[in-house]
Amino acid sequence: MSSRIAVFPGSFDPITKGHFDIISRALPIFDKIIIAVGHNAAKSYMFDLEKRLALIQHVFSDEPRISVESYHGLTVDFCEQKGAQFILRGLRNPADFEFEKAIAQTNRQLNTSIETVFLLTAARYAYISSSIVRDVYRHGGDYRDLVPSGVDLDK
Amino acid sequence: MSSRIAVFPGSFDPITKGHFDIISRALPIFDKIIIAVGHNAAKSYMFDLEKRLALIQHVFSDEPRISVESYHGLTVDFCEQKGAQFILRGLRNPADFEFEKAIAQTNRQLNTSIETVFLLTAARYAYISSSIVRDVYRHGGDYRDLVPSGVDLDK
Amino acid sequence: MSSRIAVFPGSFDPITKGHFDIISRALPIFDKIIIAVGHNAAKSYMFDLEKRLALIQHVFSDEPRISVESYHGLTVDFCEQKGAQFILRGLRNPADFEFEKAIAQTNRQLNTSIETVFLLTAARYAYISSSIVRDVYRHGGDYRDLVPSGVDLDK
Amino acid sequence: MSSRIAVFPGSFDPITKGHFDIISRALPIFDKIIIAVGHNAAKSYMFDLEKRLALIQHVFSDEPRISVESYHGLTVDFCEQKGAQFILRGLRNPADFEFEKAIAQTNRQLNTSIETVFLLTAARYAYISSSIVRDVYRHGGDYRDLVPSGVDLDK
Amino acid sequence: MSSRIAVFPGSFDPITKGHFDIISRALPIFDKIIIAVGHNAAKSYMFDLEKRLALIQHVFSDEPRISVESYHGLTVDFCEQKGAQFILRGLRNPADFEFEKAIAQTNRQLNTSIETVFLLTAARYAYISSSIVRDVYRHGGDYRDLVPSGVDLDK
Amino acid sequence: MSSRIAVFPGSFDPITKGHFDIISRALPIFDKIIIAVGHNAAKSYMFDLEKRLALIQHVFSDEPRISVESYHGLTVDFCEQKGAQFILRGLRNPADFEFEKAIAQTNRQLNTSIETVFLLTAARYAYISSSIVRDVYRHGGDYRDLVPSGVDLDK
Repeated sequence: MSSRIAVFPGSFDPITKGHFDIISRALPIFDKIIIAVGHNAAKSYMFDLEKRLALIQHVFSDEPRISVESYHGLTVDFCEQKGAQFILRGLRNPADFEFEKAIAQTNRQLNTSIETVFLLTAARYAYISSSIVRDVYRHGGDYRDLVPSGVDLDK
Repeated sequence: MSSRIAVFPGSFDPITKGHFDIISRALPIFDKIIIAVGHNAAKSYMFDLEKRLALIQHVFSDEPRISVESYHGLTVDFCEQKGAQFILRGLRNPADFEFEKAIAQTNRQLNTSIETVFLLTAARYAYISSSIVRDVYRHGGDYRDLVPSGVDLDK
Repeated sequence: MSSRIAVFPGSFDPITKGHFDIISRALPIFDKIIIAVGHNAAKSYMFDLEKRLALIQHVFSDEPRISVESYHGLTVDFCEQKGAQFILRGLRNPADFEFEKAIAQTNRQLNTSIETVFLLTAARYAYISSSIVRDVYRHGGDYRDLVPSGVDLDK
Repeated sequence: MSSRIAVFPGSFDPITKGHFDIISRALPIFDKIIIAVGHNAAKSYMFDLEKRLALIQHVFSDEPRISVESYHGLTVDFCEQKGAQFILRGLRNPADFEFEKAIAQTNRQLNTSIETVFLLTAARYAYISSSIVRDVYRHGGDYRDLVPSGVDLDK
Repeated sequence: MSSRIAVFPGSFDPITKGHFDIISRALPIFDKIIIAVGHNAAKSYMFDLEKRLALIQHVFSDEPRISVESYHGLTVDFCEQKGAQFILRGLRNPADFEFEKAIAQTNRQLNTSIETVFLLTAARYAYISSSIVRDVYRHGGDYRDLVPSGVDLDK
Repeated sequence: MSSRIAVFPGSFDPITKGHFDIISRALPIFDKIIIAVGHNAAKSYMFDLEKRLALIQHVFSDEPRISVESYHGLTVDFCEQKGAQFILRGLRNPADFEFEKAIAQTNRQLNTSIETVFLLTAARYAYISSSIVRDVYRHGGDYRDLVPSGVDLDK
């Protein structure tokens, strides 16, 4: 059987403990996981692309089966270009579910050979989102329990 | 019994196969359906009002019981001005439902003589939204299965 | 245009103020509404079929466009037999929505010519269900604000 | 037992009948309620901070156990500074619930000694939000049934 | 201000870590909490009333402000009889929310002087329900992490 | 990397087109899928265990990587016994999601080495459940579009 490659797409503004949980738990399923950091000229980010990529690279520097890349355009086109048959996504709550369902069904409409695989975010991290991390950080709160260990947003 | 007139309000930025499905299936219920395209100075659209109106007119050019108009202001005021007793809305998922419930209850508070009637978007179109069409179009994807046949966003 | 006939199916064990609200507000949409009281040998009811029918007949005795009938079997078959093109249903909350969506899509699969039309239960009655009425009644509570005026469950 | 102080945080742009309902019904639970009006340089409001504070002060001018203050920064830090052990929040619908759950769990992570207490918005006000009030007001609709009596948005 | 008494009603078949979490965290809000164990002749339980009461009494034996009683009939009637102005409930997820909302609105309809107060179950216990504990116990699984420490279902 | 084995547990009373869709689409992810048909003395089924197993075996007779077995007891214990590291589940709607989340988190509590992997049921089958198939079958409706081709419930 050929290699199972999954793309984990997102903004990662910044990476959270929830993202880390999903990626770590997906490693036994796939042979390779490409973390795909979207950059979209029309969106504004708190952390620029280089910072978002660097934080993720730092977190997974010891894991050779995980790579980090930036992309723009349709996620399914990026998957095709990388030879990935799978998109990996985490589900935290029913609102996530509705949103992810629409995206996954659009992706399948655009490219029927790519399947979206979902894992559940662990209960103790399910409240964490990048937007909550940004909010705590902006107000000077202690964000360290919300991000993977070693992540320093000020550096 | 007097004529049953329904208003189907929205931004239609642009019209989708989901909108088309709801309007087509509502024809047996009402004598006349007015597609009411909102224009709101405070919002920004991908397609301008003329384009949004023209796409809808093209799609329903053969159906004399459907008309297309632009409006601004409260939807219930537009209904009253047009002699419409009904607002028609489609429901795709629970998130839609919560949003539509608040709008419908506000409308009833403002004008108790106007009733909102809901149809379910067909399962195979329920993931489609104008925002998803815009996203696919912006990235150069093939949007034709997401809009009514004959809709050309580039023209 | 031919007559618009709707079937409003349910157990009505017993009829509630929520049912009454939906039926009353649907009268301007349809020419005739048939309240279809299901009887299912496999289910157990608090009120027997005769009582459930009698309560509804009493409530709508002044409205010639509403009739009450019992049925068993598939709802779409009952609609066909009665010449009804529409099924009327009320929506109270997102849980209702999911349940009703599955039923409506099954009915469309079984008979594509029958459309399900939804109205929103008024906010002040949306918490009421037959099961809540039965629970209050069983414990000797005052159920009168939960059912249409004139309904006497003890008679 | 020491005094039970609750903070009720929000934008209040403007205060609605839903806010009023929650605060009034929370009075028997707490000894003191501080309505905390957030001001965030990054957000744009329809009504400025002074107007938002003045409307609330006017509404609760007769209730000595309720005070109104503005704040910025983390809500848990404001609570600590005020000696409040409780955050009060209203729940209207399942979408509210998901959102509030994430906020409450973040707050507990940041400060485990502060508890969030929820009340349900009364059914007849549950569709009201500040955003709906702004929308009706912007289009010249009659907003008076959506806000506490005596609130004049034009003054 | 008079004493704040809350009733925490349920089947407790058996008590879970989720129940324990809600009750413990509610202690700073109320002066007294009465855990009210329902017994309903029409329902079947895995653990009989005596066992369900004994498990709870054991768990809270050191807390003089918590008492345990059985009841039947309407919860609001039991509250009135005990002089309790509050019903305490935990919320775990959106499905809980819809269910609890209907119950709370019925209770308010039956007795407007009794308020339902909600706390959020801690994220790490939110998946636990009595039904899941029974399922694990029935199949011989290790249920000890799902119930308060010291609870022995076999005794 | 060792073989990836997934267990797909359920009652399959009977197997539906929704089950078939999930299993077919999961084949590229796993090396082997074991369809695990639960039998529980406390539950009543429309189709007996032999019939439920036979229908599934018939549907997948050409696929050597899929096997069918019955089991009772905890699903995680069955997985361990079979050397499966994964549980496969389909998600149709938000209500499914909440239910599946509680089960998955309980399973992780019981055995942290087993991961639950979710796929989304295709939109056009998402309304189908075994309970809807049983309902249509019981009333003599045409169930063939609801089950995999070749499934004959009368044989």
